[in-house]
Amino acid sequence: MKKIDMGKKILNENEKYAIKNSLFLAERKKLCLNMISSPGSGKTTILARTINELKDKIKIGVIEGDIQTDIDAEKIRATEAPVVQINTEGACHLSAAQISAALEKLPVENLDLIFIENVGNLVCPSAFELGESGKIVVLSVAEGDDKPAKYPAIFAKSKVLLINKVDLLDRGQVDFDIERAKADARKLNKTIKILPISARTGVGMTHWYDWLLKSIEKNTIYSK
Amino acid sequence: MKKIDMGKKILNENEKYAIKNSLFLAERKKLCLNMISSPGSGKTTILARTINELKDKIKIGVIEGDIQTDIDAEKIRATEAPVVQINTEGACHLSAAQISAALEKLPVENLDLIFIENVGNLVCPSAFELGESGKIVVLSVAEGDDKPAKYPAIFAKSKVLLINKVDLLDRGQVDFDIERAKADARKLNKTIKILPISARTGVGMTHWYDWLLKSIEKNTIYSK
Repeated sequence: MKKIDMGKKILNENEKYAIKNSLFLAERKKLCLNMISSPGSGKTTILARTINELKDKIKIGVIEGDIQTDIDAEKIRATEAPVVQINTEGACHLSAAQISAALEKLPVENLDLIFIENVGNLVCPSAFELGESGKIVVLSVAEGDDKPAKYPAIFAKSKVLLINKVDLLDRGQVDFDIERAKADARKLNKTIKILPISARTGVGMTHWYDWLLKSIEKNTIYSK
Repeated sequence: MKKIDMGKKILNENEKYAIKNSLFLAERKKLCLNMISSPGSGKTTILARTINELKDKIKIGVIEGDIQTDIDAEKIRATEAPVVQINTEGACHLSAAQISAALEKLPVENLDLIFIENVGNLVCPSAFELGESGKIVVLSVAEGDDKPAKYPAIFAKSKVLLINKVDLLDRGQVDFDIERAKADARKLNKTIKILPISARTGVGMTHWYDWLLKSIEKNTIYSK
C-alpha cells in the first residue's frame, strides 16, 4: 500500500471530478464500467449485443467517447438504450469532468448499469480515473497475443479482459495463443477475469452476462 | 497578454529536436518514415517482410518504439537489419529527442531507408513531429472501415495508408468496406496513397515496395 504524506494529497482537476463521480454512483448504488481498448477491438459491437440480449433483465445506459463523429452512438441508439455522446475533439482519452457532465444527462435513476466506451486507445485512457466502478479491457485476437506484455498498464488495472473476435481463430487466419495472452495478463493482475468471446457470433457472451448480472446483484462498487 | 514578435515562433522542445533530425536526414539525403497505427495492426510484420524482400536492393534500419519489452525489436533483429529499441516506459508516443539519440546509434551512412515504428496508438503519435520525411499509417481490416472518420488526424497527415490483413476479407469473417475507408481517408487527404496489402500472405506488397523504391530514387524528403 502507498503511504500518503501527512494525509494531504493535492488532487488534480481530473481526480476531483473522479471522486465526485464515484460518490454520485455510490450514493445511487449504480455500477459503472469504463471500457478501454485499441480502436476496432469491438467495444461498440460488444455493447450493442449486451444491451439487446440483456434487455429483459437490466437497463443499460452508455456514455460514448469519440474523438469525432457519433458513429458509435448511432449504433447504441439503435438498441434504444439511452446514450450520451462526448466528442473529445482530438483528445486521446475521456476526462472525469466530461463523465460528470454526461452522468447528469443520463436517466441514471432508471438504469442498472452504465457503460463508458472510452476513446479507442490502449495507452492513455488507463491513466485517467473517471470515478468508474471498474475497468474492462477488450483485446481482439487480430491484434496479437503480445499486447498484455507490450501495453501492461490497462491489463494491470482492469477487472475483466474480454478477448474478442475468437471466431477469427477457427480457420487459422490469425495467430493468437490465448494461453500466452492469459498468462501475461495474469502476471500483471492476479485477479483479472478473462473471457474469450465473439460479439459477432455470440460465442462466450453468456459468461460475460453472468459476470455483469452478478456484479450488479452484489452491487459491487470496485475501488480498484 | 504578452505580445509575441511576428515571425518568431517559439519552438517547444520537441519541435527543436524535430528540426534537428530533419536537417540531419536532409544533409545525408536519407528517407525516414514514421509508421503509426493502433496496437496489432501489423507494423512489425510489414517491416520484417519489407526488409527481407528488399534485402538485395536497399539497406533498411529500424527505430523501434514500445512502451515496454523488445518483442518487436527481436523480430526485426531476426532479419539482420540494424535496429535501435526505445522503451518509452509508459509514454504513449515517441519524442523527437528520443529519435535524435537513436539516429546516432544507427549506421545511418550505410542505410537507404530508416523506419520508425512508433508506439501502437492511432491518436497521440500523430501530434508529435519527429523530423521524419513522411508518415505511414497502417489500418488492419479487423479494426473496421470507420477508423479514418473516427481518428482523422493521422489519416490527414500521412503519405501512405496501408490497409493491412486484407486476407481476412476472403472468407467474409470481417466486415470492412475498402471503398468507404478509401473515400473517408481521401476526404481528409487528397494526395494520400492507399495500398491494400497482407503482410502475412504477401498480397499487394509489391505496390508498397514500388512506392518505397521510387521515393528513395527521387530522394524525396517530404515536409508534410
